[in-house]
Amino acid sequence: MASAAFNRFVTAVIVLAAVLVGLETYPPLMARYGPALHLLNNLVLAIFALEVLLRMGALWPRPLRYFLDGWNVFDFLIVVGSLLPGLGAYAVAARLLRLLRVLRLVRTLPDLQIILGALLRSIPSIGYVLLLMLLLLYVYAVAGVFLFGTNDPFHFGNLHTALLTLFSILTLEGWVDVLRIQYFGCERFELPDPALCVQPQAQPLVAVVYMVSFVLLGTLVFLNLLVGIIVNSMDEMRKSLQERKAPSSDLEARLAEVQAKLREAQALLNNLAGHRG
Amino acid sequence: MASAAFNRFVTAVIVLAAVLVGLETYPPLMARYGPALHLLNNLVLAIFALEVLLRMGALWPRPLRYFLDGWNVFDFLIVVGSLLPGLGAYAVAARLLRLLRVLRLVRTLPDLQIILGALLRSIPSIGYVLLLMLLLLYVYAVAGVFLFGTNDPFHFGNLHTALLTLFSILTLEGWVDVLRIQYFGCERFELPDPALCVQPQAQPLVAVVYMVSFVLLGTLVFLNLLVGIIVNSMDEMRKSLQERKAPSSDLEARLAEVQAKLREAQALLNNLAGHRG
Amino acid sequence: MASAAFNRFVTAVIVLAAVLVGLETYPPLMARYGPALHLLNNLVLAIFALEVLLRMGALWPRPLRYFLDGWNVFDFLIVVGSLLPGLGAYAVAARLLRLLRVLRLVRTLPDLQIILGALLRSIPSIGYVLLLMLLLLYVYAVAGVFLFGTNDPFHFGNLHTALLTLFSILTLEGWVDVLRIQYFGCERFELPDPALCVQPQAQPLVAVVYMVSFVLLGTLVFLNLLVGIIVNSMDEMRKSLQERKAPSSDLEARLAEVQAKLREAQALLNNLAGHRG
Amino acid sequence: MASAAFNRFVTAVIVLAAVLVGLETYPPLMARYGPALHLLNNLVLAIFALEVLLRMGALWPRPLRYFLDGWNVFDFLIVVGSLLPGLGAYAVAARLLRLLRVLRLVRTLPDLQIILGALLRSIPSIGYVLLLMLLLLYVYAVAGVFLFGTNDPFHFGNLHTALLTLFSILTLEGWVDVLRIQYFGCERFELPDPALCVQPQAQPLVAVVYMVSFVLLGTLVFLNLLVGIIVNSMDEMRKSLQERKAPSSDLEARLAEVQAKLREAQALLNNLAGHRG
Repeated sequence: MASAAFNRFVTAVIVLAAVLVGLETYPPLMARYGPALHLLNNLVLAIFALEVLLRMGALWPRPLRYFLDGWNVFDFLIVVGSLLPGLGAYAVAARLLRLLRVLRLVRTLPDLQIILGALLRSIPSIGYVLLLMLLLLYVYAVAGVFLFGTNDPFHFGNLHTALLTLFSILTLEGWVDVLRIQYFGCERFELPDPALCVQPQAQPLVAVVYMVSFVLLGTLVFLNLLVGIIVNSMDEMRKSLQERKAPSSDLEARLAEVQAKLREAQALLNNLAGHRG
Repeated sequence: MASAAFNRFVTAVIVLAAVLVGLETYPPLMARYGPALHLLNNLVLAIFALEVLLRMGALWPRPLRYFLDGWNVFDFLIVVGSLLPGLGAYAVAARLLRLLRVLRLVRTLPDLQIILGALLRSIPSIGYVLLLMLLLLYVYAVAGVFLFGTNDPFHFGNLHTALLTLFSILTLEGWVDVLRIQYFGCERFELPDPALCVQPQAQPLVAVVYMVSFVLLGTLVFLNLLVGIIVNSMDEMRKSLQERKAPSSDLEARLAEVQAKLREAQALLNNLAGHRG
Repeated sequence: MASAAFNRFVTAVIVLAAVLVGLETYPPLMARYGPALHLLNNLVLAIFALEVLLRMGALWPRPLRYFLDGWNVFDFLIVVGSLLPGLGAYAVAARLLRLLRVLRLVRTLPDLQIILGALLRSIPSIGYVLLLMLLLLYVYAVAGVFLFGTNDPFHFGNLHTALLTLFSILTLEGWVDVLRIQYFGCERFELPDPALCVQPQAQPLVAVVYMVSFVLLGTLVFLNLLVGIIVNSMDEMRKSLQERKAPSSDLEARLAEVQAKLREAQALLNNLAGHRG
Repeated sequence: MASAAFNRFVTAVIVLAAVLVGLETYPPLMARYGPALHLLNNLVLAIFALEVLLRMGALWPRPLRYFLDGWNVFDFLIVVGSLLPGLGAYAVAARLLRLLRVLRLVRTLPDLQIILGALLRSIPSIGYVLLLMLLLLYVYAVAGVFLFGTNDPFHFGNLHTALLTLFSILTLEGWVDVLRIQYFGCERFELPDPALCVQPQAQPLVAVVYMVSFVLLGTLVFLNLLVGIIVNSMDEMRKSLQERKAPSSDLEARLAEVQAKLREAQALLNNLAGHRG
């Protein structure tokens, strides 16, 4: 009981910390209520520090076991980082540290933690599609530098520029412009830096084959990747959330059991038919 | 019988109201046939008012039970709002009220109501993915203001601007331009307001990590959200439409049906195994 | 046998007709080989006319039954249309008629016909989602004209312009620019026609709520529509193609039968669990 | 054992070759460490040549059977191509050949080979949707040249330009601009080459019908294609990866397993029905 109330209080304080860090982005507000916001920030920090001490105390006589949990280490670093006097000098670093407090919300909401966990756990299952994606990007990036590097250094000047260009093409953002520079020469396009346009005309046919094949292959593998992660994570999510809920009634539990058995039978059968077909 | 004909008549009047509100968007048409359209609009209003009275009358001797149904309250407010004389002064408000009449169509078409209900009911089921999405947007927006706020106030000037920028990046619209401002300085880009370009160069590497990670995470969670809503709503829709067609019989009859199907499957399988063994 | 060879020959002639109509798009080619292409076109037309007569003859003594099949009527109109002397005057109409010959390919390839049929047949199943989509477009278009029509007539000048703008926003093309015109006034944007920029500033907050809600709702319903059609058509396709194929072996046919029974059992069970859950 | 170590060594050398070809894209790096990189490249080539000889030797006394495997032919050509003295003159060709070495990675990682195979094998299954896509592109491209070729030669000047324009419209990139040129005349748009703007105004209504119908049909068929490939390849992938993990036992054992699962499901169901009846 006490623990649930304590958790709810901590959640409220984290939401307050999130609102505070959002208010800091408005300079007029900071100029006016700066001291009050600063005070509230220190109050939040004090509550967080107290929470760390309480959680350590609950593990007495072995308070150091507190650090066995990754989330506890995260909480501890946030508190200690804010207490360090030297950090105050670097305004951006201190602000980003305050922003990290918002992520503590993930811990206090178990359902959110489950969903995040499901998303993270579904990444290894698509590991080889990810490798294929990276291989595709790397091969096209190196080829792009060789083929278009001197004509269009803005997009293909070197390996990391080409990788960024290809990633933006994956999102289908502006790929037609990249292609047209090979047709019409870059001096006809408004590049941010005129010095980036070195030498006009190039090989339009090579450029068309390069771009169209990359758009087709890239979109296919990228979509495959996204669909793979989403399908896997939705499965994981459903399973995890179902596990947390106690079966709501005898009948539902029994029906679910029958369904599970049927699903297993069908999977075996599908597998078998696939092998023979 | 009478009720079905009445419903069809009301649907026709709503469609007429929808056409009328569409015709109002053409000024030359309004100049010419304004009085006729005004008359038709008043006729539609009269029919709607009559409908409200009839529906109340049907509940006699307790006409106030009419207000227990949310859709009835909606109908009543539309009629009363149009009758208020003061509103005529605010042309836009009066027109939007007339536009709301179109939404009455949802009520008179039960299948449409089911589909809308399925869409709405599937939102809670993805509640935590939505929360994750909002958390992602909030953290990146605050970080964006801290990191790029002074360099690029057009996109990251304050929290609500940054949130809008990040939402547009979620739809992959123009994200490459937002990134390039960090590379080349905003004075090379045609911003709508030159005063928005304060200070040129910034941290390109930080910007690349920020944008690429947001595009990947955001697309993933956003797609997850959309797919979640669509899959759930399509399930709900199928169920609801099925229910309307075949009212559910009793549990035992349905269980017996499943058992029969299973028996058939098993007989086929036995037959097959015997045949092969 | 003869029929199969005849079909293959007709398919080849259609492909030739398709190549010819493609070659016509290159003026230099037309200037050089014009007469030869014209001759080939007439040859194709003669073969098509002969085919119509042969198919009619095969139905002797009732040649008019030929017109009971929709595809036959299509073939007949293409041939007769090309023979009409008056049409020769309208070059574009004559060319488009020649282009329609390419569509005859759908008829000669039964698998293609099945896939096209599956796509078309899956449209009614998503009829109410389509209606919801149209309702959404109509309501937002009328509201857009009322709210932004005087500020931004380029995008929201009247109902059909607003409908086109909203359709383009559905594809997420340039929606951020449409929104920004409300912020910064249209005179800062390069509209194709300066006369389209009437009056600058407007209501930014209304514009943000309008656009963000439309992007969210529109994308959701549009994706729902596309996913609905695709899922349904892929189901239809698989069924139709499977039906055409004779069961490849005794075992596969029997396993498929067991699978079908299991699927039915599971569907009944899911339905039941959904009703009770 | 020796073979596994050998494979791991070859994989490491391929990764080294990939890094080397990536470093070549940075001219300053090449200027400084050029000789060292050249030496490493020759070392990689020597190891690849040795590998070819070793693999051939392992097939002694019939070394020519080495060429029966397509991947071996690929390896052989890469080594021989790099050894040819004449190729050194064409810097780009030599570099692209070195880039192809990266693709050898697919062979040394069996899981990657399976995923690539699954993607390739799923293409025939959507063959007719691909044909439909090509037919749609061809018909719209020819019609586009006839209808808009003289007004907008930049997008629809001839068949291959129109095909490229329509492919870019399929990715929803810039389709609104293509449409607006028909409304406002091309002289209002900044085309890369002013000479491409011949004749202003055209038929706006035809253009709207043409573009909107192509966007709807094209998106639908293109998404159908992508979804078809992805669903099929994910099925294939799962099956292939499963096969590698658990080699298939005999048919009877598997059928018995399915039967057992079904019996369990039925027992649960009987129990439940008895409980309720």
